[in-house]
Amino acid sequence: MLGNRKKYIVNGNSGIKAQIQFADQKQEFNKRPTKIGRRSLSRSISQSSTDSYSSAASYTDSSDDETSPRDKQQKNSKGSSDFCVKNIKQAEFGRREIEIAEQEMPALMALRKRAQGEKPLAGAKIVGCTHITAQTAFPVFAWKGESEDDFWWCIDRCVNVEGWQPNMILDDGGDLTHWIYKKYPNMFKKIKGIVEESVTGVHRLYQLSKAGKLCVPAMNVNDSVTKQKFDNLYCCRESILDGLKRTTDMMFGGKQVVVCGYGEVGKGCCAALKAMGSIVYVTEIDPICALQACMDGFRLVKLNEVIRQVDIVITCTGNKNVVTREHLDRMKNSCIVCNMGHSNTEIDVASLRTPELTWERVRSQVDHVIWPDGKRIVLLAEGRLLNLSCSTVPTFVLSITATTQALALIELYNAPEGRYKQDVYLLPKKMDEYVASLHLPTFDAHLTELTDEQAKYLGLNKNGPFKPNYYRY
Amino acid sequence: MLGNRKKYIVNGNSGIKAQIQFADQKQEFNKRPTKIGRRSLSRSISQSSTDSYSSAASYTDSSDDETSPRDKQQKNSKGSSDFCVKNIKQAEFGRREIEIAEQEMPALMALRKRAQGEKPLAGAKIVGCTHITAQTAFPVFAWKGESEDDFWWCIDRCVNVEGWQPNMILDDGGDLTHWIYKKYPNMFKKIKGIVEESVTGVHRLYQLSKAGKLCVPAMNVNDSVTKQKFDNLYCCRESILDGLKRTTDMMFGGKQVVVCGYGEVGKGCCAALKAMGSIVYVTEIDPICALQACMDGFRLVKLNEVIRQVDIVITCTGNKNVVTREHLDRMKNSCIVCNMGHSNTEIDVASLRTPELTWERVRSQVDHVIWPDGKRIVLLAEGRLLNLSCSTVPTFVLSITATTQALALIELYNAPEGRYKQDVYLLPKKMDEYVASLHLPTFDAHLTELTDEQAKYLGLNKNGPFKPNYYRY
Amino acid sequence: MLGNRKKYIVNGNSGIKAQIQFADQKQEFNKRPTKIGRRSLSRSISQSSTDSYSSAASYTDSSDDETSPRDKQQKNSKGSSDFCVKNIKQAEFGRREIEIAEQEMPALMALRKRAQGEKPLAGAKIVGCTHITAQTAFPVFAWKGESEDDFWWCIDRCVNVEGWQPNMILDDGGDLTHWIYKKYPNMFKKIKGIVEESVTGVHRLYQLSKAGKLCVPAMNVNDSVTKQKFDNLYCCRESILDGLKRTTDMMFGGKQVVVCGYGEVGKGCCAALKAMGSIVYVTEIDPICALQACMDGFRLVKLNEVIRQVDIVITCTGNKNVVTREHLDRMKNSCIVCNMGHSNTEIDVASLRTPELTWERVRSQVDHVIWPDGKRIVLLAEGRLLNLSCSTVPTFVLSITATTQALALIELYNAPEGRYKQDVYLLPKKMDEYVASLHLPTFDAHLTELTDEQAKYLGLNKNGPFKPNYYRY
Amino acid sequence: MLGNRKKYIVNGNSGIKAQIQFADQKQEFNKRPTKIGRRSLSRSISQSSTDSYSSAASYTDSSDDETSPRDKQQKNSKGSSDFCVKNIKQAEFGRREIEIAEQEMPALMALRKRAQGEKPLAGAKIVGCTHITAQTAFPVFAWKGESEDDFWWCIDRCVNVEGWQPNMILDDGGDLTHWIYKKYPNMFKKIKGIVEESVTGVHRLYQLSKAGKLCVPAMNVNDSVTKQKFDNLYCCRESILDGLKRTTDMMFGGKQVVVCGYGEVGKGCCAALKAMGSIVYVTEIDPICALQACMDGFRLVKLNEVIRQVDIVITCTGNKNVVTREHLDRMKNSCIVCNMGHSNTEIDVASLRTPELTWERVRSQVDHVIWPDGKRIVLLAEGRLLNLSCSTVPTFVLSITATTQALALIELYNAPEGRYKQDVYLLPKKMDEYVASLHLPTFDAHLTELTDEQAKYLGLNKNGPFKPNYYRY
Repeated sequence: MLGNRKKYIVNGNSGIKAQIQFADQKQEFNKRPTKIGRRSLSRSISQSSTDSYSSAASYTDSSDDETSPRDKQQKNSKGSSDFCVKNIKQAEFGRREIEIAEQEMPALMALRKRAQGEKPLAGAKIVGCTHITAQTAFPVFAWKGESEDDFWWCIDRCVNVEGWQPNMILDDGGDLTHWIYKKYPNMFKKIKGIVEESVTGVHRLYQLSKAGKLCVPAMNVNDSVTKQKFDNLYCCRESILDGLKRTTDMMFGGKQVVVCGYGEVGKGCCAALKAMGSIVYVTEIDPICALQACMDGFRLVKLNEVIRQVDIVITCTGNKNVVTREHLDRMKNSCIVCNMGHSNTEIDVASLRTPELTWERVRSQVDHVIWPDGKRIVLLAEGRLLNLSCSTVPTFVLSITATTQALALIELYNAPEGRYKQDVYLLPKKMDEYVASLHLPTFDAHLTELTDEQAKYLGLNKNGPFKPNYYRY
Repeated sequence: MLGNRKKYIVNGNSGIKAQIQFADQKQEFNKRPTKIGRRSLSRSISQSSTDSYSSAASYTDSSDDETSPRDKQQKNSKGSSDFCVKNIKQAEFGRREIEIAEQEMPALMALRKRAQGEKPLAGAKIVGCTHITAQTAFPVFAWKGESEDDFWWCIDRCVNVEGWQPNMILDDGGDLTHWIYKKYPNMFKKIKGIVEESVTGVHRLYQLSKAGKLCVPAMNVNDSVTKQKFDNLYCCRESILDGLKRTTDMMFGGKQVVVCGYGEVGKGCCAALKAMGSIVYVTEIDPICALQACMDGFRLVKLNEVIRQVDIVITCTGNKNVVTREHLDRMKNSCIVCNMGHSNTEIDVASLRTPELTWERVRSQVDHVIWPDGKRIVLLAEGRLLNLSCSTVPTFVLSITATTQALALIELYNAPEGRYKQDVYLLPKKMDEYVASLHLPTFDAHLTELTDEQAKYLGLNKNGPFKPNYYRY
Repeated sequence: MLGNRKKYIVNGNSGIKAQIQFADQKQEFNKRPTKIGRRSLSRSISQSSTDSYSSAASYTDSSDDETSPRDKQQKNSKGSSDFCVKNIKQAEFGRREIEIAEQEMPALMALRKRAQGEKPLAGAKIVGCTHITAQTAFPVFAWKGESEDDFWWCIDRCVNVEGWQPNMILDDGGDLTHWIYKKYPNMFKKIKGIVEESVTGVHRLYQLSKAGKLCVPAMNVNDSVTKQKFDNLYCCRESILDGLKRTTDMMFGGKQVVVCGYGEVGKGCCAALKAMGSIVYVTEIDPICALQACMDGFRLVKLNEVIRQVDIVITCTGNKNVVTREHLDRMKNSCIVCNMGHSNTEIDVASLRTPELTWERVRSQVDHVIWPDGKRIVLLAEGRLLNLSCSTVPTFVLSITATTQALALIELYNAPEGRYKQDVYLLPKKMDEYVASLHLPTFDAHLTELTDEQAKYLGLNKNGPFKPNYYRY
Repeated sequence: MLGNRKKYIVNGNSGIKAQIQFADQKQEFNKRPTKIGRRSLSRSISQSSTDSYSSAASYTDSSDDETSPRDKQQKNSKGSSDFCVKNIKQAEFGRREIEIAEQEMPALMALRKRAQGEKPLAGAKIVGCTHITAQTAFPVFAWKGESEDDFWWCIDRCVNVEGWQPNMILDDGGDLTHWIYKKYPNMFKKIKGIVEESVTGVHRLYQLSKAGKLCVPAMNVNDSVTKQKFDNLYCCRESILDGLKRTTDMMFGGKQVVVCGYGEVGKGCCAALKAMGSIVYVTEIDPICALQACMDGFRLVKLNEVIRQVDIVITCTGNKNVVTREHLDRMKNSCIVCNMGHSNTEIDVASLRTPELTWERVRSQVDHVIWPDGKRIVLLAEGRLLNLSCSTVPTFVLSITATTQALALIELYNAPEGRYKQDVYLLPKKMDEYVASLHLPTFDAHLTELTDEQAKYLGLNKNGPFKPNYYRY
C-alpha cells in the first residue's frame, strides 16, 4: 500500500482475522486470513455489510460446498496460489467492493498517494493478522467458518514461507505475535517492530515487557487518541441504537436503561439513548468516571437498585460477571440484555444454561430465555458484542484504524536506531494528529494555522504536536 | 375485540392493507386483507419484522409457488373458508407472533379486557381495510404481492358478503369507503360511521363533507393528538436513524444534512440527527415552523443554498417535487437522498430515468444513480417512504393507533342520536387522553390526580378533559 | 406607531403596567402607566434591565424623594402634562434606552415602517394597560412602587379624558377592561374591539362571553401560536437557568430536579435542565402531556415519590397548592423551591408563615426558611414567578408580543362589519404567520416559496395560511 | 484544616489572591491576601457572590474610606494583628458566609473530619497565595483594590515572618514561588514541596524543571483529572450562559455563535449553546480537537469564513490575538465579543483603542465600541475572562479544587524520602480518584465495588487506581 502495491484489502469475509501480506521486490506486506476461533474480540466488524449482498453472492456460492478451502486448488488472475480463500471466483465481486470502500476512505487513499512517491515502507516485509471486511482486501488466508485448527494453520502458512521472512508484525489480538514467539523465536532477530491494535494484544505486550521478554519495539495503537475516540465513543454512540433496533425493533423513547460502565463505550451508549428519550442509569467502579456520569445527568446506582425496573441492561465494562444469574432472576419480563464491552463474559450467560430455563431462538442473534413462571429475558448475541454481532462498523472508523496502523508501521520501520527500545510505545502524538488531519476533509473542515507570533507565544511548533502527552481531549 | 372476540390480528404480511372482520353472533368485525398496489401510504409498516423470520418460514413457503391465493382452497382450523391468504398452514406461526405482539401491547389488552365486560361493540358489524403486520392479525383477505385487481377483489369480498352487512367502517386511505360509495351506496343506510386514520383518507372525507356528499358521521383519528405525536414525531425520531443505518451503514457524526420540512416528521428527524452529531439545515415554507427551526438551533435555508455541500437530503414535506432534477444534478458525489414525508413524489425520481444516467442496484432498497462524470447519488427506496421501506414501526406505535381506532369505533357506535352529524370529527379530547392514559403503565409512569379544590380552582373536571380544544401540546 | 406617531415606549420602569396612549389628530394611542398592585401577572418583566443602569441613574434620582408622582407638576419637552411618571428629567436617558431597544426589535420597526405608508390605524384612539419596560416607552401614567389606589387612579386618568374617547382597548390582565365595564359602560358604544394578551384577561373575556355580557369583539392574542411558543417554551428554556443562577449560583450538573407540570413552560424548563446535566422528574395531571414527558426521557412521578431526594422543585402548572406544607416538611436540607407557572399560589407559601419556622432573607429574592432541626429550604421570590422576579424577558420576546398586539389591533380596527361578533377570537392564522415571518430576518433565515404547481397540489394559497386551524406545531 | 485548625477561609473579597497561613503549635498554615494586579488569571472567581451582599454590607463600609488597609491598626477577636484586611469588623458577616459555604462543601468537610483524627499535616507550616472568595476564609493579607505594590507587600508579609518559616508552598499563579526564589532562596532548604494549581504557575514550574533550577518537588494539581473537568468543561458549560445572560439579557435560541478553540472550555461552551438552540461554529488549530468538534456536530471553520454572519464570538484558546482588529472590523452590528480562555490577550482589545472608535460603557462589564458608520460591537469585560468577571464559580467547583490542593499537600508532606525528586508531578491517580469519591455523596451516587474475582480478572487493586496513567476519561 505504502510502497508500490496498491491494495491491501480482501474478499469481504467479515468477522475474520487475516494474515496480511505484501510481496514485492521493493516492499512486502504479507497478509493472509485466518479465523479468530472462540477468543473474544476487543471490537470488531459485523456480518451485515456482506450479508447485504448475500442474495447477489448466493448463486456463486453453493451452500452445500463442504470442501475445506485448505483442500482446494485455486489460482488468482496472476497465476499465484499463495492464498487460501473459500472461492477465488468471487474476486471480481470483491474488487468492486474494494473500489466502493476506497471511495469512502479518502484519508487512506491520500496516505497511499503520498506513499507512492515516498515509499516509506520500501523493503518492509509485513506479516499481519487482523479482521477481514469489505474494507480490507487482498488475496489472503481467511474464510468464514474457520475452525480453531484452521486459524492456526492459516497463521502458520503466512509466517512459515519458503524464501520469505517478515521484518514487521501487524497484529490484532496478539495471536500472530504469540505464534512467532512460540514457534519461530529466531525470526525476531530480523523484525523491526510490532504494531498491535487490540486491548487484549496490548495487554499481552505490556505483560511481556514487564517480564522482560519483549525482544522488539512494539507500538500500542489501540490507545492512540483518534482510534480510541472513534472505536469507542463515536462508533458506539451509533451502534448501540443500530444493534438494538435491528434485533428487537423496540422504541427507545421512555425506556428505562441501565448502562454498566461509563468509559468511552458507556459514554457513547448513554449519550445516544438519552438523546432518544430513554431514562438512563449508570453503574461504575471508578469514582472519576462516576462523577462524570453524574455531571452528564445520569443517576449513578448499583445494579441491584434498578434491576427490577429497567427495560434494557447494557454492559460496557471489560469486566466479568457484571450481570449475574441473580440479576437475571430479578429482571422484569421482556427485559433486554446485551453487551457492548470487550469480552463475552460481562453477562454470565453460562449461568442461564440450566434445566429450568428454556431457550428459544426467536430470530438471528435474539434468544428468549424463559423462566418457569413464563418470564422472558431477551438475550442478544448470546452475550457477545452487540456491535460486533448485530450492527456494522462504518467504513470511516476502519479508515481511522487502518491509517493509524500504517503510520505506526512507517514510524517503527523508519525510526533511527535507538529511538525505540524493547518496550511498548504509544503512537507519537504528531502522528496521531496526522491521522486526524487526514480525515478532516471528509467533513469539509477547515483547520486554523498558528501565526509565527502565536506559535512563539504558546511555545509550540506550528505543525504540532499541539498538546502535552498527558492531555485528555 | 371489544365484544367477545379476542383477536383481530393476522398473519404478518407487512406492507399490506386488510379488510378486517369480526363475525360473531353478538358483534362482528369483518377484516380481510388486500394489497395496496402502487398507491402511496401515508405512513406504514416495513417488511423487517417478517423478514427477520424469513429463514424460519422458508421451509414451509416454497418460493416457486405461483398459484394465486384467489385460486386456492383453504380452510382454517374451525373449518371456515371466509378468508384468502397465501398459506393458512402458517396460522400456527402467526398465532405465536400474535401472542408476542400482545405482550407488547398492554394498553390494547387492557382495553380488550374492559370491553369483555362492557361489550361496547355488541351488535357492531365492522368492515375494515388497513395494513397487516405481525401486530394485526385474524383470518383476512390479504397477501404479499397482490395486484391492483387483487386489491379491489379482496375489498369486494369483504363488503359483498351473503347474509352479512357492515354497520361500521374502519378505513385507512379511503379505498374501502370509496368502494362502498361507488358500488354499494345503499349500504350507508345502515352504517353508523366511518373511522379513518390516514392523511389521504381524511383529506377525501373533508372533500366529501365540503361537497355535501358525506352521508354518515366520520371520525378523523389521524389528527388525534396521541396518534399524531407517535406516528410522526416520536416514531420518525427513531426510524430516520434506523432507515439510514440499515441501508447505508453510514456514520452520522459530522455529516451535513438538509431536512426539507419542519413539521412533526421533520422535527423528529432533525432532533435525532442533531443528537448523533450531524449538522442539520432545514427548509420550510411556513414561517411559524421556520421560526421553530431557528429556535431549535437549525439554519433555515433554501435548498439551493446548501445542495452542493450536504451529505444527506431528507424530504418531510408532504409536497411534490421538493427535490428536483436540478437539485440532483448539483449534489456532490455519494450524496444520500431519501424521503420521510407522506408521498413518493417529494423527490422527482422520474426525472432520473433518463438515458445518460445509469442506475445500479447495490442492495435491497439502495440504488446508485450514476452521472456521466462518475458522480453517484445514493437513492433510498426509490424515493418512497424510508421508514416504510427500510425501517420498522414499533409495536408501541401500532398499539397507540389501534387503541385510538377502537375508541373511535366505540364512540361513533354508541353516540346518542344527534351527537354526530354528517360531518368529519376529531376524536373527543377525553378519549384522546384515555388512549394516552392506557399507555402510561408501560413506562411505570404515575399520573397525579387533581384534588377537588384544585379542580374547582382550574374549572376542570377531575377526569378531564384537561385542555381547551385549541391546545397545541 | 402604526399611524404617524413613532414611539409607544416609555422610561423603563419595569414590572409595571401602563395605560398607553397615542394622541394625534390622525390617530390616537392613549398610553399611561400604572402599577399592577398585588395581583399576579401571567408572565412579565424583571427588574434586571433597569437595575443594571441604577448606578448611572442614581445621581438624578435622589432616593429620599418621597413626593408621590401624583402630586408633582411635570412637563415634557413639548410642554405637555398629560402623563404621570416619577421623574420626567430622565426622559433623555429613556430615549437612549428606547433607541437601543429599537435596534433589537427589527420586526416591530419593519411593521412601523410599513404602517407609516399604509396608516392602518388612522383614526384609532387606543387606550392600553400593560407592563412598562425598557422596550415599551412613551409618556405614560406609571411609576415603580404604585399603590393599589395609584393603579386605579392611573387607569382612570387614561380613560376619563376631557374631549377624548378611546375606540380600541389594548389590555393585559383585564383590569382596564374591567374598569371601563364598571365605570364607563357607555364607552363601549364607540369601541371597536379589545385586544387582550394575558391568561387571566382572556379567562375573564371567555367568562363574559359565556355569560352573554361581552359587548364588543375581543381578540385573544395570548393563545396565538408564535406568542405562546416564545412566552413559554423558548423564553422559559432560558430563564429557568438564568433565574436559578442569579439567585443561588448553584451548579446544575448532577442535580436532581422535579418539575411540576409539562405544558410549554414545563417543557422548556425540563429541556434546559436536562441539557445542563440535571436529572429531571416530572409530575402531570394530563395523560397526554404525561406521555410526552415519558417520550422525552423524563420519569413521570407523583411529587411524594421524589420529594425527599430532589435538590430543586419547580412549579409550572397554573394550579394552586401544588407544593404543600407537607411536601415542604419532607424536602431535604438546602432544597431550592421556585415557581415558573402563572400564579403565586402554586407553592403554599402561606403555610410557611408559622412560628416554628424562621425566615432569613439571604439576598434579594432569596429566603432561607429554617426548620427547628436546622433544615433550610431555599425559597425564591417568595413563590412568585421566578422569571418575573429573578430573570429578564429578552427584547426579542417582547417584539413578538408587541407585533402580535399591533396586528390584532389593526385586524379588529379594519375588519369589515360582521366579520367579528361579540365573541372572543384567536388571531387569524395568516396574521400569526405574518408575525413569525417578520422575525425571520433576525436569524438570517430564508423561507422557501411554493411554486404554483406545488400550491395547487397542496390546495394552499402561496401566501398562506399554511396549516389547518387544529394544527399543533 | 487538616491538623487542628478548623478554617482556612476568609472574608469574601473576591477576585483576589491570598497568602494563606495556619499558625498553630502543631501545624501551621500561613495564609495572607494580596491582589493579583494586572496579571492574567488562569481561571478565577467573580465578584457576584459578594456583590449580592453589597447592600447588606454597605452600611458598615463607608465608600469614602480612603485609608489603605496597610495603614490601619486592626485586631481580630483573639487579639491577633497578624493579618491585613479592609475591615475586620465584617468578620462576623464573613463567618456566616463561611458557614453557608461549609454546608455546600461536604467533601472538604469530610476530609477535614478525617484529618482531625489523623492530623496528616501536623508540623506543616504552609504559606499560600490564592484567590479569596466567600468560600475560602481566614484572617489573611488581602483586600479588594490592591495595587501591584500592595500585592507584593502582602506576599512579603506572609513569607518574611519573625520566628516562623514555611515548609510547604501552596501557590496559584507562581507569584509566591517566584518571590521566594528571588528574595529568600535559602528558605527552600526547609521546604518539602510546592503545590501549584494554575496553568501559568505550572508552566513556570516546568520551565524551572527543564532548566534544572527546581529545587524541591512540585505537584501540578492544575492537570489533575477531577479539577480539570470541573474547572473547565463542567464549569464553563454553565458559566458561558450565565455570563452572557447577566451582561446582555440576550436570547440564545437561533443565534449564530463562533467558538474559537475546542479544548475543555470550548467543549463546555459549545455544548451549552447548542443545547439552548444556538448554531455553533468552531475554529481549531489541533486536528484531533477539530475532529472531535466535527463528530460533536459543529462546523469547523476558519474565523474569517463566518465572522460577518455571527451574533457572538467566544474565545477559548489560551492563545493571543485570536480575534484581531481585522475580524472586529468585519463583524456585523450588535455582535457580542467575549473571552472564556485563560488570558486577556485572546481578543486584541488594544487595537480598539483608536481615535475613530467610540467606547460607550452601557453597564458594568459591557462596552459598546462604535464604528464611524454607527456599527456597534458589544465587548464584554474588556476582553478579560467572562466567567471571572460576569459569572460566578460554584462552591462545588471550589470544593473540588480545595480538596485536591489539600490532598496534594498531604501527599508531598508525608511522602517517604525519595518518592518525589526535584521535578513536577501530577497528583497520584489514586488521590485524584479519592477527590472524586469524596464528592459523590452530594449526588447520592452509589459506587459499585469490585468483587475479589473481578479485581483479579482485571489485574486491579479493589481500591484503585482503576486506570492506566494515559487514560483520557
